[in-house]
Amino acid sequence: MPLHALAPLRIGMLGLGTVGMGTYTVLQRNAEVIEARTGRRMEIAMVAVRNLARAASLVDDDVELVDDPFLVVNHPGIDVVVEVIGGTTIARDLVLQAIANGKHVVTANKALLAVHGTEIFAAAQAQGVVVAYEGAVAVSIPIIKALREGLTANHIEWIAGIINGTTNYILSEMKDKGVSFADALADAQAKGYAEADPAFDVEGVDAAHKLTLLASNAFGVPIQFDKVHVEGITQLDAADVAFAERLGYRVKLLGIARRNPQGLELRVHPTLVAAEHLLAQVHGSMNAVMVKSDAAGVTMYYGAGAGSEQTASAVIADLVDLARSSSLVQRHRVPSLAFQHHAIVELPVAAIDDVETAYYLRLDVASLSRTLPKILGHLAQADVRVQQLEVLEHPDDAQLNAVVVLTDFTQLRVLRGAIAGLEALPTVMGFVRSIRMERLV
Amino acid sequence: MPLHALAPLRIGMLGLGTVGMGTYTVLQRNAEVIEARTGRRMEIAMVAVRNLARAASLVDDDVELVDDPFLVVNHPGIDVVVEVIGGTTIARDLVLQAIANGKHVVTANKALLAVHGTEIFAAAQAQGVVVAYEGAVAVSIPIIKALREGLTANHIEWIAGIINGTTNYILSEMKDKGVSFADALADAQAKGYAEADPAFDVEGVDAAHKLTLLASNAFGVPIQFDKVHVEGITQLDAADVAFAERLGYRVKLLGIARRNPQGLELRVHPTLVAAEHLLAQVHGSMNAVMVKSDAAGVTMYYGAGAGSEQTASAVIADLVDLARSSSLVQRHRVPSLAFQHHAIVELPVAAIDDVETAYYLRLDVASLSRTLPKILGHLAQADVRVQQLEVLEHPDDAQLNAVVVLTDFTQLRVLRGAIAGLEALPTVMGFVRSIRMERLV
Repeated sequence: MPLHALAPLRIGMLGLGTVGMGTYTVLQRNAEVIEARTGRRMEIAMVAVRNLARAASLVDDDVELVDDPFLVVNHPGIDVVVEVIGGTTIARDLVLQAIANGKHVVTANKALLAVHGTEIFAAAQAQGVVVAYEGAVAVSIPIIKALREGLTANHIEWIAGIINGTTNYILSEMKDKGVSFADALADAQAKGYAEADPAFDVEGVDAAHKLTLLASNAFGVPIQFDKVHVEGITQLDAADVAFAERLGYRVKLLGIARRNPQGLELRVHPTLVAAEHLLAQVHGSMNAVMVKSDAAGVTMYYGAGAGSEQTASAVIADLVDLARSSSLVQRHRVPSLAFQHHAIVELPVAAIDDVETAYYLRLDVASLSRTLPKILGHLAQADVRVQQLEVLEHPDDAQLNAVVVLTDFTQLRVLRGAIAGLEALPTVMGFVRSIRMERLV
Repeated sequence: MPLHALAPLRIGMLGLGTVGMGTYTVLQRNAEVIEARTGRRMEIAMVAVRNLARAASLVDDDVELVDDPFLVVNHPGIDVVVEVIGGTTIARDLVLQAIANGKHVVTANKALLAVHGTEIFAAAQAQGVVVAYEGAVAVSIPIIKALREGLTANHIEWIAGIINGTTNYILSEMKDKGVSFADALADAQAKGYAEADPAFDVEGVDAAHKLTLLASNAFGVPIQFDKVHVEGITQLDAADVAFAERLGYRVKLLGIARRNPQGLELRVHPTLVAAEHLLAQVHGSMNAVMVKSDAAGVTMYYGAGAGSEQTASAVIADLVDLARSSSLVQRHRVPSLAFQHHAIVELPVAAIDDVETAYYLRLDVASLSRTLPKILGHLAQADVRVQQLEVLEHPDDAQLNAVVVLTDFTQLRVLRGAIAGLEALPTVMGFVRSIRMERLV
């Protein structure tokens, strides 16, 4: 039986807000590559929304829209419920009802799980269904998977994470611009990085929700949000952020879970970390989680901590896991090379001559003032654009200058021609050194 | 049926070198936590070694030692073969034989898979067994899992990785100490970061092996090591490393796989990256892989790129995946909170007063010369040790100084007492500000 003959995974979604629309959009746009990886089609069959007319303008006609979310969780044709409705009251009832009906659940709702997780996971265990929640912590980063599957060999010693993008953005602004917490918050709100009611974020509650889930996965302890010590960043003085910087430190809001000889520490608070530490390099609204464990040592996981499609990436990964693990035609759920065996296709691999990168060039030059115009002329003629040019003292020979050129993106074949011309200049000594340069953003 | 009643996963290991001993050691030391996560015991039943006497001194009596590795791959009682024998000739024969016998295989042998992967994965697909290889790329980092499972929703745009620790160590030394490639290599060899024959590492071949595997997982293309453009770091001039630094860049050996409009780029070469870029912050023998994808955006995965237990961490994670996925008593292989439901236990969570961290303290002080001795006396009396003390200009009040103190690790209850004493000093104005400080190494 070919794998694509499997019935599609039928998804019922609760809510069509930021995360719901992101999930719908990415499932549509990337349907082909997702099916190539999964061996099964994903189908959003039903969506529960408040405003049916608005929703009808957003999704295709083949999606059934309902305004009662219980119709979704009770529908016998739905395999998986994606809960992106938010909150902890109706969401709890819906998730428990879905589980009771034998449906898997995917959610990105950290508040729900941090508060009602014990009840929800016990119900799922009893029913033999999955409640997946990769999107609940540091959305785009597969950190739940790393802890739950990647680091299973290890005793975890501690976790320290920047797991709230709003506060990290505010702290980055306070450091970079020397502004107060209040001003940085107002700026974050204006730019959409902070909610109109920012209390959940800036008081550290959102980070504590996520830390609760990380700690249970790391240490095998129950979910215990109420035991987390929580301090936000509202009391932080811009002067202290600046003083810390002067001393070589940066202030970050960290969620820390640590085993100590007596048991566990669970705490969210502003923390000085050395400026050269990797966590100090996590800027703006980005997230990162560092894990120290006995065999693997320190590992770190970095990515966006918020966003529509960034969260959708995690929600869909959970759906793919479900589709793969419930497949009966394979003994193993994950293909060797990520894609289904039959879906692996050749793509032409570029000859290196055709590849474009930026370049660093270094020329050892005599008679600088005479040679420099010729270098620039040659590069222009060869169609290699100059981004930056610096003349430096040559470390080995006082008679020479080192001319360093940073170029625009250029094919290697073009660069080779330019270099040959430069090396033919009588006042360019020896070879022209070249190293590729990448921006990687 | 309680989960621990499942028969143990019976492991046959080929080789007992660095990775083999690491795997054995971690499986022994962490047996309890691994079983709590897996719901099944791991048992190294057989090990094939060259030197039986030496091996007998290293492992427990209940491990059967043989000097013919084919006895392991042909043994009917073995569920999984762990190939840590290395090389691409006998290792290939053994892995194919194990697959033919219906056994799963776990390997960390990137050369084997980069060269013979197509044949090996096809055989595994035909037999319905798993060939797992998380340890083959950036050992401690679950990057294969991230690509294969975490980012399944995404079109991957590019991958850029520091995936060879030896060359990253050498480049870090060249930058930090201004030494030549040859001197940095000799130093790396003396310290055990480079092999006696370093060609595989410094010529970029090892990185190209790993890039081959990353690219297939990212793009769904066949394994094609022979199409990777490979440049090592042997031709790199220390002067260029220094010049690049002067211009705000750092030189890293990157493995890059990128989709472009024509197809694919596969290349390993020295690369300038901006000094403030995260990949520029990856020092010494550490590894990191950055992935750009359409929904998740940029994510990065960081950790040790070599080491006995670091590789074992990945090998065992693969074994746990196998044990979980071959379990018949659960519809889902991965427990909600990483640990088997029955294995979740309470640990006492420390009251925040008992938690020890270092602290940043800031005191606004009048009459500095009179007050400073009193501050130090108070801290000493309260048993708060001072690591660093700086006197800074107060930003708001020229009459005052800001005295910033970085303390040793101190319990909050102790610090509170000290702060109360300090605030009682008449020349300490207002509150003493305190922020926690962590080293996180």
